[in-house]
Amino acid sequence: MSTSSPNSSSNRVLTVDTINPNVITMEYAVRGPIVIRAVELEKELENGAKLPFDRVIKANIGDAHAMGQTPITFIRQVIACTTDPSLLKTNLYPEDVKQKALSLLGACGGGSVGAYTQSNGIELIRKHIAQFIERRDKIFCDPDSICISGGASEAIRNVLKLFIHHDSTKKKAGIMVPIPQYPLYSASIEEFNLGQVGYFLEEEKNWALDLEELERSLKEHQEKFDVKVIVVINPGNPTGQVLTKENIENIIKFAYKNNLFIFADEVYQENVYAEGAKFYSFRKIMKEMGSPYDKLELASFYSCSKGYMGECGLRGGYVQFDNFDPQVYVHFKKMISAKLCSTVLGQIAMDCIVDHPQPGDPSYNFWFEEKNAVLSSLNQRAKLVTESYNKIEGVHCQQVQGAMYAFPKICLPEKAIKEAQLLGEQPDFFYAKKLLEETGICIVPGSGFGQRPNTWHFRTTILPQIELFNEMLVRFKTFHERFLAR
Amino acid sequence: MSTSSPNSSSNRVLTVDTINPNVITMEYAVRGPIVIRAVELEKELENGAKLPFDRVIKANIGDAHAMGQTPITFIRQVIACTTDPSLLKTNLYPEDVKQKALSLLGACGGGSVGAYTQSNGIELIRKHIAQFIERRDKIFCDPDSICISGGASEAIRNVLKLFIHHDSTKKKAGIMVPIPQYPLYSASIEEFNLGQVGYFLEEEKNWALDLEELERSLKEHQEKFDVKVIVVINPGNPTGQVLTKENIENIIKFAYKNNLFIFADEVYQENVYAEGAKFYSFRKIMKEMGSPYDKLELASFYSCSKGYMGECGLRGGYVQFDNFDPQVYVHFKKMISAKLCSTVLGQIAMDCIVDHPQPGDPSYNFWFEEKNAVLSSLNQRAKLVTESYNKIEGVHCQQVQGAMYAFPKICLPEKAIKEAQLLGEQPDFFYAKKLLEETGICIVPGSGFGQRPNTWHFRTTILPQIELFNEMLVRFKTFHERFLAR
Repeated sequence: MSTSSPNSSSNRVLTVDTINPNVITMEYAVRGPIVIRAVELEKELENGAKLPFDRVIKANIGDAHAMGQTPITFIRQVIACTTDPSLLKTNLYPEDVKQKALSLLGACGGGSVGAYTQSNGIELIRKHIAQFIERRDKIFCDPDSICISGGASEAIRNVLKLFIHHDSTKKKAGIMVPIPQYPLYSASIEEFNLGQVGYFLEEEKNWALDLEELERSLKEHQEKFDVKVIVVINPGNPTGQVLTKENIENIIKFAYKNNLFIFADEVYQENVYAEGAKFYSFRKIMKEMGSPYDKLELASFYSCSKGYMGECGLRGGYVQFDNFDPQVYVHFKKMISAKLCSTVLGQIAMDCIVDHPQPGDPSYNFWFEEKNAVLSSLNQRAKLVTESYNKIEGVHCQQVQGAMYAFPKICLPEKAIKEAQLLGEQPDFFYAKKLLEETGICIVPGSGFGQRPNTWHFRTTILPQIELFNEMLVRFKTFHERFLAR
Repeated sequence: MSTSSPNSSSNRVLTVDTINPNVITMEYAVRGPIVIRAVELEKELENGAKLPFDRVIKANIGDAHAMGQTPITFIRQVIACTTDPSLLKTNLYPEDVKQKALSLLGACGGGSVGAYTQSNGIELIRKHIAQFIERRDKIFCDPDSICISGGASEAIRNVLKLFIHHDSTKKKAGIMVPIPQYPLYSASIEEFNLGQVGYFLEEEKNWALDLEELERSLKEHQEKFDVKVIVVINPGNPTGQVLTKENIENIIKFAYKNNLFIFADEVYQENVYAEGAKFYSFRKIMKEMGSPYDKLELASFYSCSKGYMGECGLRGGYVQFDNFDPQVYVHFKKMISAKLCSTVLGQIAMDCIVDHPQPGDPSYNFWFEEKNAVLSSLNQRAKLVTESYNKIEGVHCQQVQGAMYAFPKICLPEKAIKEAQLLGEQPDFFYAKKLLEETGICIVPGSGFGQRPNTWHFRTTILPQIELFNEMLVRFKTFHERFLAR
């Protein structure tokens, strides 16, 4: 190939030297190199390769259905009926499913889920979401304060974008995020050229938020960034803690004192397992605290991907705003309108979650049974995971109070740390890579979420079903002991 | 409320003075103020208001189902079966629907459409897309060159992002877009702080691309921007032209000469109506031109929202790359992985389009009948719209060769132009507003797409069904004559 051509491969328009440098520096560990290698290994197994294991166990991602959780029938029936309305004429589905499908179709353009919706979502569904929030918080919620999105991730990214500016003479907006944090935040902050302001969670206090640490982190970053946002993930990802009411109150006071916009990532609100632990929405606490706290700007996020439903693939979610500047909101809605709308079937999934069957409805008993089966099984696994890891030498796992993950600390031998450093790898990445290659277990190294210097962790989901989890644990324990011995 | 509080409404973190200034300046006319007012009027009618019309006709957006087009049964049956696999055990659906559903479920994590997919989409579907492209172009296509997305819009925005940088000492990347253009481009370019480089289409040559005009535009903008991309929409939106092979070849030569990355927005490839007109993919022409042109970087976009299917609400689409730098591609896939994946049911819709029933399959005859009915009705309406507008005094409409829109030129009286200027409005916006208020017809003013200075247009879809279109035309003609007379 001639190199003199302006478009020979050596002279492409887009190369790593010319693309958006923030796209190069951003990282998203949940789907990072370990996971890419896991997919390769799966393919090798499919093609008959002989490996030290017969299946890859993907404990890297909160993907319940992929790990064998069955979908909630009610949700699927409503989606099937709205997709193919001829099903409404059959006797296959209960009457409440058909009624809901009919009313949702009535809210779709031309009575079809193939029509665009308003960019903030179908109004009927936003009303149901507002009612759900009201029932939960016992506080009025305006359907117009809600924008439905393709999963919570899209909404989080959309709100984050409002803090971007392109004036290099001004400080970047700083976004406070917990460390460890779900890397959607670090990835998006980097992609959007915002400033990450990490605050450490207190591992030994079961990953609680410590006020002094918030103050320290804020002070330390104020010179570099114009800190504008605090992100709280509750229940925590990857750390599984459930915040107490008092802890939330303190965070709100901190946000007030420092004039911060609050992001409350509450996608795991149904996933609370520990005795005595309870989910409180930031919105409820903030409103109940009264003036001046109840005037803080708050964006709360929810999703159909987690909870008892686990409908990740349907891409439903929303953001709900409190005290959002009305003019800013006009521009926000204009911005999201360029992407037209989120998927209608994802919106319908969201509707089935916030407006689910009630006692007396034909679908209620089965819905309740399915929901409880999922949640109690998750509860059981949360306890099992905590206990099992703590029984292994050199592994310390805080109680999984909620969400879908454990984030155990691992003690790595000096020799392994040095070997990793020689390879230019984080020691926990090195560990995770070996674990994958030797056992087929795919977890995410703690460095992908952030952690205190010279501590090492990994994130594992609690999603493998009991039998598979037990198998995973045997493989893990053997590997870990061998690793320490080497 | 005390104004001394750091978070009183007068002292919010986010105000129009502090938010991302590009979010303020971006505009998206297809869902702009005219459309927002149309939705208000619809609500007023619902609430029993007496208006000069009894329904709002939304000719503003390419939303086929909302305008009464019925979905393709095959697509909906496959989605219903994959959503509720218990339908596979009934006799409701043809065998080929069930087979496809089964094979798609086999490609989903845990056999559920509720599982995340790979970020670039389900591999089986990417294979089907590659086969579709190969059949169309008679040229090999690698499934790994395809990334499935939530509609083409998401893919277009993702690829555009690669050209962002935050170094204010360097010129912004310039993106050449047709004028008039679909405002997804202008909105995203503005949001991403890129440089818009408009080139005018030649209205009197049925909106063809003129090479001299491309040269002029490029030269004129090179001082300000580092021009890196040329966007071509074929068939055209909002202008409805279908490019000839020769025109495409010339554009490719222009891109080669000036070292440009090509975006081929081909979402209307099924929508070609004019006699003698034919859709040629940029990919096919570029590869057939041989060296050095076949090495150009090209991103081609397709969608399930247009064509004969019109499944806007399902959010399926893809980008397919040629000659993309492999290292850049790794970063691109990492970037999209932070959003996890596009909706599985949208991916499945895309699959049903690229891998549709074949002669002999149980669903074939009905599928073929439905597809033809939609396309021949659109064909009929394309001609009707062109003819009808040209019969009205002061309206000139180029032939609608393809896509779903007409973009007629309107002669506005001096008095109206002055009145609009007094209101600080574009004259065609002023016209569109009056049209909406007096007749309930919602179209988008030409200024939302761009047009030559001192010319005025509007975009209307050809989607209203014949009867409704005739009603719309009567209302329009009466209004237009009254408007000219005033």
